[in-house]
Amino acid sequence: MTDIGNRLHAHVAALFPLCRSITGPGLRDTLRYIGDHIPLQMHDMPSGTPVLDWVIPPEWQVRGATLRTVDGRVLVDFQHNNLHLLQYSTPVDRIVSREELQSHLYSLPDQPDLVPYRTSYYARNWGFCLPERLRRTLTDEVYHVTIDTSLAPGSLTYGECVLPGESPQQILFSAHCCHPSLANDNLSSIAVAIELARAMSVRRRRFSYRFLFAPGAIGAIAWLHFNRDAADRIAHGLVLTCLGDPAPPSYKRSRRETAPIDRYVAHLLRERGNADRILPFAPTGYDERQFCSPGFDLPMGCLMRSPGGSFAEYHTSADNLALVTPDSLAASLRLLQDIVHLIERDETLCNTAPFGEPQLGPRGLYHGERAAGLDRAAVLWALNLSDGRHSLFDIARRSGLSFASILAAASALRDAGLLVPAEDVSSATAAEA
Amino acid sequence: MTDIGNRLHAHVAALFPLCRSITGPGLRDTLRYIGDHIPLQMHDMPSGTPVLDWVIPPEWQVRGATLRTVDGRVLVDFQHNNLHLLQYSTPVDRIVSREELQSHLYSLPDQPDLVPYRTSYYARNWGFCLPERLRRTLTDEVYHVTIDTSLAPGSLTYGECVLPGESPQQILFSAHCCHPSLANDNLSSIAVAIELARAMSVRRRRFSYRFLFAPGAIGAIAWLHFNRDAADRIAHGLVLTCLGDPAPPSYKRSRRETAPIDRYVAHLLRERGNADRILPFAPTGYDERQFCSPGFDLPMGCLMRSPGGSFAEYHTSADNLALVTPDSLAASLRLLQDIVHLIERDETLCNTAPFGEPQLGPRGLYHGERAAGLDRAAVLWALNLSDGRHSLFDIARRSGLSFASILAAASALRDAGLLVPAEDVSSATAAEA
Amino acid sequence: MTDIGNRLHAHVAALFPLCRSITGPGLRDTLRYIGDHIPLQMHDMPSGTPVLDWVIPPEWQVRGATLRTVDGRVLVDFQHNNLHLLQYSTPVDRIVSREELQSHLYSLPDQPDLVPYRTSYYARNWGFCLPERLRRTLTDEVYHVTIDTSLAPGSLTYGECVLPGESPQQILFSAHCCHPSLANDNLSSIAVAIELARAMSVRRRRFSYRFLFAPGAIGAIAWLHFNRDAADRIAHGLVLTCLGDPAPPSYKRSRRETAPIDRYVAHLLRERGNADRILPFAPTGYDERQFCSPGFDLPMGCLMRSPGGSFAEYHTSADNLALVTPDSLAASLRLLQDIVHLIERDETLCNTAPFGEPQLGPRGLYHGERAAGLDRAAVLWALNLSDGRHSLFDIARRSGLSFASILAAASALRDAGLLVPAEDVSSATAAEA
Repeated sequence: MTDIGNRLHAHVAALFPLCRSITGPGLRDTLRYIGDHIPLQMHDMPSGTPVLDWVIPPEWQVRGATLRTVDGRVLVDFQHNNLHLLQYSTPVDRIVSREELQSHLYSLPDQPDLVPYRTSYYARNWGFCLPERLRRTLTDEVYHVTIDTSLAPGSLTYGECVLPGESPQQILFSAHCCHPSLANDNLSSIAVAIELARAMSVRRRRFSYRFLFAPGAIGAIAWLHFNRDAADRIAHGLVLTCLGDPAPPSYKRSRRETAPIDRYVAHLLRERGNADRILPFAPTGYDERQFCSPGFDLPMGCLMRSPGGSFAEYHTSADNLALVTPDSLAASLRLLQDIVHLIERDETLCNTAPFGEPQLGPRGLYHGERAAGLDRAAVLWALNLSDGRHSLFDIARRSGLSFASILAAASALRDAGLLVPAEDVSSATAAEA
Repeated sequence: MTDIGNRLHAHVAALFPLCRSITGPGLRDTLRYIGDHIPLQMHDMPSGTPVLDWVIPPEWQVRGATLRTVDGRVLVDFQHNNLHLLQYSTPVDRIVSREELQSHLYSLPDQPDLVPYRTSYYARNWGFCLPERLRRTLTDEVYHVTIDTSLAPGSLTYGECVLPGESPQQILFSAHCCHPSLANDNLSSIAVAIELARAMSVRRRRFSYRFLFAPGAIGAIAWLHFNRDAADRIAHGLVLTCLGDPAPPSYKRSRRETAPIDRYVAHLLRERGNADRILPFAPTGYDERQFCSPGFDLPMGCLMRSPGGSFAEYHTSADNLALVTPDSLAASLRLLQDIVHLIERDETLCNTAPFGEPQLGPRGLYHGERAAGLDRAAVLWALNLSDGRHSLFDIARRSGLSFASILAAASALRDAGLLVPAEDVSSATAAEA
Repeated sequence: MTDIGNRLHAHVAALFPLCRSITGPGLRDTLRYIGDHIPLQMHDMPSGTPVLDWVIPPEWQVRGATLRTVDGRVLVDFQHNNLHLLQYSTPVDRIVSREELQSHLYSLPDQPDLVPYRTSYYARNWGFCLPERLRRTLTDEVYHVTIDTSLAPGSLTYGECVLPGESPQQILFSAHCCHPSLANDNLSSIAVAIELARAMSVRRRRFSYRFLFAPGAIGAIAWLHFNRDAADRIAHGLVLTCLGDPAPPSYKRSRRETAPIDRYVAHLLRERGNADRILPFAPTGYDERQFCSPGFDLPMGCLMRSPGGSFAEYHTSADNLALVTPDSLAASLRLLQDIVHLIERDETLCNTAPFGEPQLGPRGLYHGERAAGLDRAAVLWALNLSDGRHSLFDIARRSGLSFASILAAASALRDAGLLVPAEDVSSATAAEA
């Protein structure tokens, strides 16, 4: 168990008790926690604001909720587990018949000891989520329902950590943060994103980085609504979700299927022996549904361990602190750092001496100490394919050599003036024209 | 055995006795029979008319033909089987030596009991087709040949059933109708085309349909010559041949190999477990030779059960009423109706709310009765890929969902105004510009 | 053992003793020998001439070289084997310590009886190549090194045999000729190129042919420098190397991977059962490194038997006259002739009657003697795909028929005026426009 693993798990544990939703104080407390660790800009959208095809909903606040027998025995209490209350439940305080109550109860017959997670954001309703085993004991004629909530004009909040880089081109990492006490889905990704942002904040960045912490669906929609310009500058992106469970990593491709981010992540998963966990795009799942909608079609895939919906604990009280492990969290962070490494270091260069092979000897690339550290084949491949149409990653893939060796060769060749960024050649050509 | 199967077989039986050729009364009688069942326009091209690289040949009429011993014993008689006479035989009435006769006889040493089918349309000749077993008994020194035919200016006739649809874009089904008493090749396809046209005539048609009944090669050439404009409007087409034998269906792709019609039929054959019966294009076979000639290159494949030439009865007297079965004929018709269903229902739509997912709830597509009948994933796929570049068939293929479920989703989304035909978007855009 | 095989081997044997290098008299003697058999233009570039990123080096001459004990016992003598001297060794005549000597000795610990081949063209050095077994006996404290060489302004020479054809488009065959006594690498290819040029010189040539005999790397670079225009006209090309050893033929694709030359050679290797010996491009190896540099990117692959570096005798004294066999040399020549046959005969034609099938009968292509020699399917394929976008080779590949049968069909169709060269159609169209 690594230090970083423990630190990641501690973030999950700290955030676990909060009752998050797509609006409200639990969401704001979560963003405040994140803001304690990385620079975070908060954005508030008032209820009623139109965003794309949607409208920001009223804000939901919960003070408490119980299901009691008429003689006052507490059967279900929001204080014990915030999953017990159907999200966006309207206020109620009355005696209801068993029959009426049943239509407001949610349980899992196949997992009778677990509390399910349910929401009703846009259709007004109230309800309790409870273990099937408990539900079966509800034989009284009437029950006392007390739900002390409010649905009133307020705002939806999301947070962004923006780390400017040398290029205005952006890399977007998005983690939804609306789920209440569910550890893997999606505190795991919030934790990993916090630590990735911390690490990125102290290193040289070729690209600009944007970490988005927003409620699922409506939050991504609000962000897209107010950031259409930013969206146009997204070079690569990933939706982060379920990054803490013990399964190996998996990746769902972007709608484009073969965007560079798809090729980068697929390559790293293959290297790890997880080729079978590279999944095609589908417009179901998490916020890739918004980012990859046809009007945006952003180059964003979805990085996960167990895909949402595929694990037994999904959207239940079993998605708890025991499901996510320090090791898995740390492995997810390492994988993301490897992805960032490819993003940062891959580029398309041009050979400045493309007619024949250039002399390597006089440039110290044939004999001597510098040359000794290079793979000669990597040097020749980097020269041969750097024609403005192949990136270093492309060259590594075609040559079968490691990205590291191509990178080392390209670096030496740049120092020797034999490779220059492709855009420099284009602008030079443009200047001449 | 279905009613429709019996009806199809009855067409084959009714047409079987006629002595068809590429011109002449048998051909006209065949077209008249078809015209008794579906609206058919007859077209006559006088002999001598230039059509593409060809010229309409003289018309051939047969009154009778016998091969007799000099003492009058009839050995071969056209009245018994019209296959006995080499098609386009010139008139003869004389005593010929056994040696001369032999060079005018056609038989099948490997199938000694069958009469082969032979023609000599463009090289003047006469001849008899007979069983090898009979041929071997011809030991007389001389024989009496009587062929009462005429080759004289007349006309070539073909028939067309045109069913106009909402769009001027046409679907062409072509069945050659020059073969005399051969049941599978090609009365089977004539029968199936009659019933398909009948069914199409009473339903809503997005496309216009054209059923062409023409003699092989020269008939298709004549049609193309006089219908170059129509050819330009053919969106999809099929040559129909050998649709009555008991083999599973097979399909030969168009010259384009991946035209929509190729993808539709390949999909349906795969669904039926007949992926191994999807064949590449070849410029041999039936009238796809003309329709897929490089100057036209129409998107037309060839639908068959046993491919011509691949079955033992091919072009012999064994291609008779026993070879074609009501069940196979009915199965061919059903397959064609499935193809038409894809053609009619596939279209390319555009999402009118392409930025993010649109709200489904307020449109009755999330909760309630309407939503209950829809596959949620199909709704999301239809929205996500309806960008003017993917047809509904494309969406079904990429999503792995059934065409029916994508169609149902698209229909509901159209009703909700979330999808509109791609051309509407284009023209709206054009109007704005 | 064939006559031609013996003739090829005799060339190798005649050239074997010469001490070739990238400059100098051995190289000129080699070119003179070649010039005795085929018309060869000699080109001299003075030392110091800039060529692409390089400069023509000083000329190297060797009069003799020995390693002796101080009492005069000869241990290594250039006269016995010109591989003994490190190529481009500077002159030396002095007593050296064993320690200093060791840093100038080259041997092969794993092949202790062989003399390696080593060069130091651009870094001034001297050295001896010797068997490891002999090296181990050098226990004296000092030795007498005598190297009687000169490095002085002179010139680099290469030779070209140019055979003009009907088209200015060129086919380039390049064989490096700088290696001293190494038979397979590359006297084998020089021998094969001589005989291929002889055969080509007496036949009709659609293309122009250029046989280049130049020292490796610097020679190709010099040729490219002074022949950039010619390079622009190279339609297909091959680097020839190691064509005499007993291994089956192998082929390394051009940088383009699917240039016509790649498809031609791959096809012929597949026909010979050597599909496993078709290798992807890599910017290592022989002069394809220059010809396929990104600025030129010529459509040139590399034809070999054993790829350089892959056989035990590579760059050692074991690459001698026993390694190359008359049979292998002759087989290489035959393969090259088959490649030339494809190059010469493949062309892209246009069907002059592309609407429907043209009539074959009146053109003598259906009945009769001429038609009898043709494959009917080949005739139909040649007509169907001759649309200006498919070459005859493409048609053979798509149809699955042999190139010979497509060629015969195309030839008959040309005679009948049904096919014409695509460029004739284009220029006719251009003239009309």
